[in-house]
Amino acid sequence: MFRLTSLQNQRIKEIVRLRQGKERRKMHRFLIDGRREIRRAISQKFPVEEIFFCPELADEETKNWVIQLEKTSSHALHFWEVTENIFTKIAYGQREDGVLAVAKSVKKTLDDIYHQLPTNTPFRIAILEGVEKPGNVGAILRSADGAGISALILASPGTDLFNPNTIRASLGTIFSVPTCVAEPEEIISWLNLHHITPYAARVDGAIPYTDADFTIPCAIILGSEAWGLSSHFSGGNIQPIFLPMCGIADSLNVSTSAAILFYESLRQQNLISTTR
Amino acid sequence: MFRLTSLQNQRIKEIVRLRQGKERRKMHRFLIDGRREIRRAISQKFPVEEIFFCPELADEETKNWVIQLEKTSSHALHFWEVTENIFTKIAYGQREDGVLAVAKSVKKTLDDIYHQLPTNTPFRIAILEGVEKPGNVGAILRSADGAGISALILASPGTDLFNPNTIRASLGTIFSVPTCVAEPEEIISWLNLHHITPYAARVDGAIPYTDADFTIPCAIILGSEAWGLSSHFSGGNIQPIFLPMCGIADSLNVSTSAAILFYESLRQQNLISTTR
Repeated sequence: MFRLTSLQNQRIKEIVRLRQGKERRKMHRFLIDGRREIRRAISQKFPVEEIFFCPELADEETKNWVIQLEKTSSHALHFWEVTENIFTKIAYGQREDGVLAVAKSVKKTLDDIYHQLPTNTPFRIAILEGVEKPGNVGAILRSADGAGISALILASPGTDLFNPNTIRASLGTIFSVPTCVAEPEEIISWLNLHHITPYAARVDGAIPYTDADFTIPCAIILGSEAWGLSSHFSGGNIQPIFLPMCGIADSLNVSTSAAILFYESLRQQNLISTTR
Repeated sequence: MFRLTSLQNQRIKEIVRLRQGKERRKMHRFLIDGRREIRRAISQKFPVEEIFFCPELADEETKNWVIQLEKTSSHALHFWEVTENIFTKIAYGQREDGVLAVAKSVKKTLDDIYHQLPTNTPFRIAILEGVEKPGNVGAILRSADGAGISALILASPGTDLFNPNTIRASLGTIFSVPTCVAEPEEIISWLNLHHITPYAARVDGAIPYTDADFTIPCAIILGSEAWGLSSHFSGGNIQPIFLPMCGIADSLNVSTSAAILFYESLRQQNLISTTR
């Protein structure tokens, strides 16, 4: 493992810049903080290219894992040992594990997503419009992974998918749930083309969510808490569903609504009792 | 409205100290940030004692609301107009609305909670053990309010109920859902005494959550993500339930699990279609 010691190293400066969305989009690369998250990226065959490892900050388990990984991984994965100073600089506060990775952004299209959908069971996908907080997108990915949602599509998102906070909040499930970004118009055409029934969660929806039929190929569509869904996701064959609000508040957090809808769709498919 | 202008004012110093849990417990007072939250506290008849109002920071709606409130409220509610400097100091970053309240802590016992439970329908309550993050407790209160959970009991919590972040994350639903703090042993005796069926959410639970009967008086028990539930909440008549995990992650966020369980209990009671 090559050891980097200078804060002035060009590669280190490039890594720090990957904390900015603009730079991530330009370089088609992003950062993964934390052992669990990196592990999940690798096990899901995400193109991880570099590992930055700080022995002074890593615990025994992490050290052994990195050593083992270096032995068994292909030449496409590069390892760098860095000083504590350098690690602190590139890890940006997320330094607990002493390990950080750089991976290539995987940009999928709606067609790519379609070809990854299961063919033997009715699939359920999720669509988020305008959800801006990376933490919410990450939390929704975590629930989608738990409930067996087949894909997550972001419609004109305010955050990029590979924001470090999204990855962290997803606990690395961003690497297991197929994702893509697309414009609302494209998404609507794609849903129609493939006969996917769209259910849009709206505070003023007409259909109680438990009356929606989630046993057919369907999409669960959610908007931001502040703005709701745009007019793209109303009218036509889009079914407006609602979650009951029994108390004094008028809405749930978007990641909470998502989880309730995802698990209701799982329940309807009769998959609960057989899944452990 | 009396105007306070000095940062050295004794009352201002006391208010600032209420940001600390220790001081809140000693003074039996806590702070409420934000117009919506204060409004909900007042409408739920929580003992709000003082309003600190900064006209320079408040929008028209807030100004009109404060003026109206001062006109119509009883003499027990005191109003202070403060300068921007003072407000910045007491509001601690939460200054968007230009309004802050001091309220008396309402400490309920398990018996108080019991007497507030509905008698005409089978109630559902929630119990949280060791959930430390105020944001999680607040998010759980918000879902509990939405799903019509009758009460929330904290078993030896690491956070105090009236932490400003709990109140904020709850969007003020902390004032609509009856809450209390008690030791696990007391809670168990109380559940048994009142024939409340306890369901404990555990990663290794034996019963799929959709097989639990939530149509009888019951308690949904959740532990912290890091530590799970203590041995107090296993064995005996406690039913260990689980949420299926279909993907690569092994658990959900505690506030996500809570919301799914709360809404499943609402669904089972056939209340969804009739609630808007």
